[in-house]
Amino acid sequence: MKLGVVILAAGKGTRMRSALPKVLHPLAGRPLLGHVLDAAAALGAARVCVVYGHGGAQVPEAFPQSKAHWIEQAERLGTGHAVMQAMPGLSEMDRVLVLYGDVPLIEPETLNRLVDDTADTQLGLLTMELDDPTGYGRIVRDKSGRVLRIVEQKDASTAERAITEVNTGIIVADRSSLDTWLGRIDDNNVQREYYLTDVIGLAVGEGVEVATTAPETLEEVAGVNDRAQLAALERHYQHGLATKLMHGGTTLADPGRLDVRGSLSCDQDVFLDVNLVCEGRVRIGANCRIGPNCILKDCTLGAGVEVLANSVIEGASVGPGARIGPFARLRPEAEIAEECHIGNFVEVKKARIAAGSKVNHLSYVGDAEIGAGVNVGAGTITCNYDGANKHRTVIGDGAFIGSNTALVAPVEVGAGATIGAGSVINRDAPAERLTLTRARQTTIDDWQRPKKR
Amino acid sequence: MKLGVVILAAGKGTRMRSALPKVLHPLAGRPLLGHVLDAAAALGAARVCVVYGHGGAQVPEAFPQSKAHWIEQAERLGTGHAVMQAMPGLSEMDRVLVLYGDVPLIEPETLNRLVDDTADTQLGLLTMELDDPTGYGRIVRDKSGRVLRIVEQKDASTAERAITEVNTGIIVADRSSLDTWLGRIDDNNVQREYYLTDVIGLAVGEGVEVATTAPETLEEVAGVNDRAQLAALERHYQHGLATKLMHGGTTLADPGRLDVRGSLSCDQDVFLDVNLVCEGRVRIGANCRIGPNCILKDCTLGAGVEVLANSVIEGASVGPGARIGPFARLRPEAEIAEECHIGNFVEVKKARIAAGSKVNHLSYVGDAEIGAGVNVGAGTITCNYDGANKHRTVIGDGAFIGSNTALVAPVEVGAGATIGAGSVINRDAPAERLTLTRARQTTIDDWQRPKKR
Amino acid sequence: MKLGVVILAAGKGTRMRSALPKVLHPLAGRPLLGHVLDAAAALGAARVCVVYGHGGAQVPEAFPQSKAHWIEQAERLGTGHAVMQAMPGLSEMDRVLVLYGDVPLIEPETLNRLVDDTADTQLGLLTMELDDPTGYGRIVRDKSGRVLRIVEQKDASTAERAITEVNTGIIVADRSSLDTWLGRIDDNNVQREYYLTDVIGLAVGEGVEVATTAPETLEEVAGVNDRAQLAALERHYQHGLATKLMHGGTTLADPGRLDVRGSLSCDQDVFLDVNLVCEGRVRIGANCRIGPNCILKDCTLGAGVEVLANSVIEGASVGPGARIGPFARLRPEAEIAEECHIGNFVEVKKARIAAGSKVNHLSYVGDAEIGAGVNVGAGTITCNYDGANKHRTVIGDGAFIGSNTALVAPVEVGAGATIGAGSVINRDAPAERLTLTRARQTTIDDWQRPKKR
Repeated sequence: MKLGVVILAAGKGTRMRSALPKVLHPLAGRPLLGHVLDAAAALGAARVCVVYGHGGAQVPEAFPQSKAHWIEQAERLGTGHAVMQAMPGLSEMDRVLVLYGDVPLIEPETLNRLVDDTADTQLGLLTMELDDPTGYGRIVRDKSGRVLRIVEQKDASTAERAITEVNTGIIVADRSSLDTWLGRIDDNNVQREYYLTDVIGLAVGEGVEVATTAPETLEEVAGVNDRAQLAALERHYQHGLATKLMHGGTTLADPGRLDVRGSLSCDQDVFLDVNLVCEGRVRIGANCRIGPNCILKDCTLGAGVEVLANSVIEGASVGPGARIGPFARLRPEAEIAEECHIGNFVEVKKARIAAGSKVNHLSYVGDAEIGAGVNVGAGTITCNYDGANKHRTVIGDGAFIGSNTALVAPVEVGAGATIGAGSVINRDAPAERLTLTRARQTTIDDWQRPKKR
Repeated sequence: MKLGVVILAAGKGTRMRSALPKVLHPLAGRPLLGHVLDAAAALGAARVCVVYGHGGAQVPEAFPQSKAHWIEQAERLGTGHAVMQAMPGLSEMDRVLVLYGDVPLIEPETLNRLVDDTADTQLGLLTMELDDPTGYGRIVRDKSGRVLRIVEQKDASTAERAITEVNTGIIVADRSSLDTWLGRIDDNNVQREYYLTDVIGLAVGEGVEVATTAPETLEEVAGVNDRAQLAALERHYQHGLATKLMHGGTTLADPGRLDVRGSLSCDQDVFLDVNLVCEGRVRIGANCRIGPNCILKDCTLGAGVEVLANSVIEGASVGPGARIGPFARLRPEAEIAEECHIGNFVEVKKARIAAGSKVNHLSYVGDAEIGAGVNVGAGTITCNYDGANKHRTVIGDGAFIGSNTALVAPVEVGAGATIGAGSVINRDAPAERLTLTRARQTTIDDWQRPKKR
Repeated sequence: MKLGVVILAAGKGTRMRSALPKVLHPLAGRPLLGHVLDAAAALGAARVCVVYGHGGAQVPEAFPQSKAHWIEQAERLGTGHAVMQAMPGLSEMDRVLVLYGDVPLIEPETLNRLVDDTADTQLGLLTMELDDPTGYGRIVRDKSGRVLRIVEQKDASTAERAITEVNTGIIVADRSSLDTWLGRIDDNNVQREYYLTDVIGLAVGEGVEVATTAPETLEEVAGVNDRAQLAALERHYQHGLATKLMHGGTTLADPGRLDVRGSLSCDQDVFLDVNLVCEGRVRIGANCRIGPNCILKDCTLGAGVEVLANSVIEGASVGPGARIGPFARLRPEAEIAEECHIGNFVEVKKARIAAGSKVNHLSYVGDAEIGAGVNVGAGTITCNYDGANKHRTVIGDGAFIGSNTALVAPVEVGAGATIGAGSVINRDAPAERLTLTRARQTTIDDWQRPKKR
């Protein structure tokens, strides 16, 4: 069976009040439409067509890696019309599944179930039970439970309004039947639109039995029409992700205060304190502890790393047993080896720091190669930029850099060297020696403190 | 119709366990009573009287801008007695509305509705339906739905206790009728207090039809008696504000983690990450992104500004396209022009920084004027304070300040000048030249590292 | 009456997916079992026995201060078997109460009530009402309300499944009767385990009336089987603690964003902003304000201290009226006297700072003694470590340390001394004088800026 998927993604999303097309608004760091594309991919669909419109080329351009077929709906004449645009490209498919670019949390499991449960009929429909169905199209069934039609809120009788089973809009249909039905729907309605929903009446009219199935949760089929709904789904998503992490062996101080925008993998017995925000691909080794209010982005932490409060790590790797923060910032290409300590108010960028070295306080280390067992004193700055180019600082194993030192790159400090506090080092400092710059300490005897004016 | 408002604000609030009078406890950064004064102002009341008592002059002194009339209730003999104190000042009013200083979230829309809905009668009452009415005064009506009386919990029969419509205490009355009724209520009760509620019985006794209306939400009429109730209303308020922001076109990573104490205006397509705290007047331009855990106070951000995680901005302005943080602190009178970068562990105070300049790392810039296209190296300090007075540092366009430099103000660095790393500059540095202080780099050959004792 | 307590703590907790025995997982910073030990201690139990197993000696070793008796259950053959292991050590007790190491929030008040309410019978049982009792053992009673037996889910009839009163597993029993009953239970069941629950049937069979009582909240008797349940109880615990603080006179900006892992005491009118995390023993004086995103650990703050956003204080004391932060870090043995200011990007460790001194920006103060009224300029570093040993810096009252100064310890700056900006001070600086190191400022006329390569 070859399954084609059509994703409707042409709407403007007026209530988003945004210059960005609705389907490009991110949920968990990924556009809404991206989530739906992922779901379609997980189904193993033979072909995925996205019907876009509002926002124009922005929409396909946001998914440069996607293998989907992008079809522009020049005129937007309703959901039925949108699906019609995609049908020519699906002529080799056996069945067609219709999804929505603004219904991001649909689960592949649910869709598989819909496809499987409805394999024996020409039309399957995902429906759900709502406590308050107001506003939704109700599923009208006959006494034997057979679907008769969908009635919209405004057309529903009092009895029909009491029906709590409603249409989600997600359908799967035999491709050639769908083609036929789509050819027969019309726009004889107030909006002058072709409604996809009308195919259900046509199918029933032909004696087709409409099979239905339901999602596991309502959030799966919830659409995003405004940013409050977006935030509600974001929270639902994050809560589900937190629960999965916990069941997998990660302790969360507060599952309600974790945000993962991308992928987070944690080995056993990781502790994540409150307000962690992860972006991109984050991997955390066993027994790590991440303190409150940290930001991790595209980084890898080895086993037993401790990241203390209020630290920001991006594009960096940290070796086993290292201790980072509080108030540390690791920037891209920081490679911190095992058992290093990177302390408060320290920034590291594009620098390798070998095992057991310490940069504990108020320092900037950029474009540097630092050996093992080095102690970088407080207030040390690698002066890597001369106003035009970047240069490297190299520090050998076991060196000791006195506090408040400026290392003017390109410069090399030899292994075991000591640099005196407050120095400006702009020539190489030999190994095992003390190197410093130091003006003579003077006391002015007759000096008067300035007076407050 | 001239409307007078009486706000009862004399209570002690014992359960707050506070030295501060209850009505001065802040909700969203503004005293409870301030919210009620705002609601009264929004009604266009001709006169607002506040009856205060506990805490004495502290209460009126907390609202130096208010045009309300402040009436001290020397003896606190109940709500009826409190309103009586205000009546002489309201003799020119047609109607009188009674509000409460510890019921902060009452909506002007609700009050307008109460006033309008009850325009044809002498007495209007705001009532609400509660699932659990225990403890509240029930609204007893006759078969035709006419209000008969309010019965307090302790006096209610079993049938009356089953009534779920309760009194909120907020009433609007014909001024002269209210005067009469207040003259008739007595303190023949256990507490020896004059109860405002008693006017309802008197009015009904005179054949007056008591009109009622209901608030939109229960929180509008919720009183604050302890800090748990205060926190609950704070969260409700913040949630409502978050919802408004989202509907207006702002994306919130988590609506449950936003605190606005004052006013926040966001242009279109702003993204606010988790845990933002805003105080005072904050204006955020279109397409700004505010990272996690930031504090914004009395500041203005131009379009497209990016504020990275864990930054604190107070009393500052930031131009379009600038990037601030992470871990940046802008203090009052920092004026950061367009496209500037203010980076980690950088503090800026009372300083103008012109377009495109960068202060990326570990610096203190205070009392300074920095030109356009300047690069301020890591660890730069403007030494603005000599122990008695503050002095200014001026840096011309395109200057390059080497790392770890101290600029001893008053001092001027010319346009295009370069300052060598690690310098202490206490005289003006000419434009386009390299200026530095530098002791000779020396290596001590026979030096021995200290040994661990 | 001598009460013995048995705490069952031998389980593995497979669903925790952890190398740590389940009962050692922390809730509010203390192992689950620690909470139960505290509850037992609060009861005044004459003897507390803990039956441990999985994780071996780790479990008792985690409670070096505990006076409990630790009994290893070598074979784990069920709850009845576990209690049997403890009985020999309880031979002098009158009654025995059975608790669970993974049911951490049981309240001593509830247990006291259970013990008191069941004083007249040989067996008391803590039961609870659940809306959805699925999975729990139901309490089957006769028409007169007498407990007949407990029926497990799998054995329950339809009628029995409708029973909403369920077994919590917590029992109190006459010691000698319990001994007898335990001797009679068997392992004739699928799991081949001895179930403690079976004693109820035996007791009823002997005509014993089983008394029951209920906990105040369901969380009290909730067990921890996975980390999602752990997190749910953590939140419940924190919420309860927040409520207590509020009722005691502390304002919380958001009760849902407070984490206390240890003890927190607040004097009157303290304001705690969002995301405070407290660990160990924290004492906060009256009228303190703690800003957003702060971490406090084992510290004491005097009255009227203001801690600004994003600060971390650990093992330190802060005197009345001091102002700390934002972005300040106080480390162990920092003693900050009254009215001091410790500002942004400042780290203080093992240092006494006397009244009214200021360290406002970008400094490291470690192993130091700083007098009163001292001004430590931005970028000041106490160079306390020579690579082998730590040395002290002493600064006299009223000294002024210019910015970007390195104080090479051991070194002393006299009272009223001034240190010029950018100095490296490695010999004592006399009182009342200006001392500095300074190279001559030079301008290079023919210097060319590097070009971008």
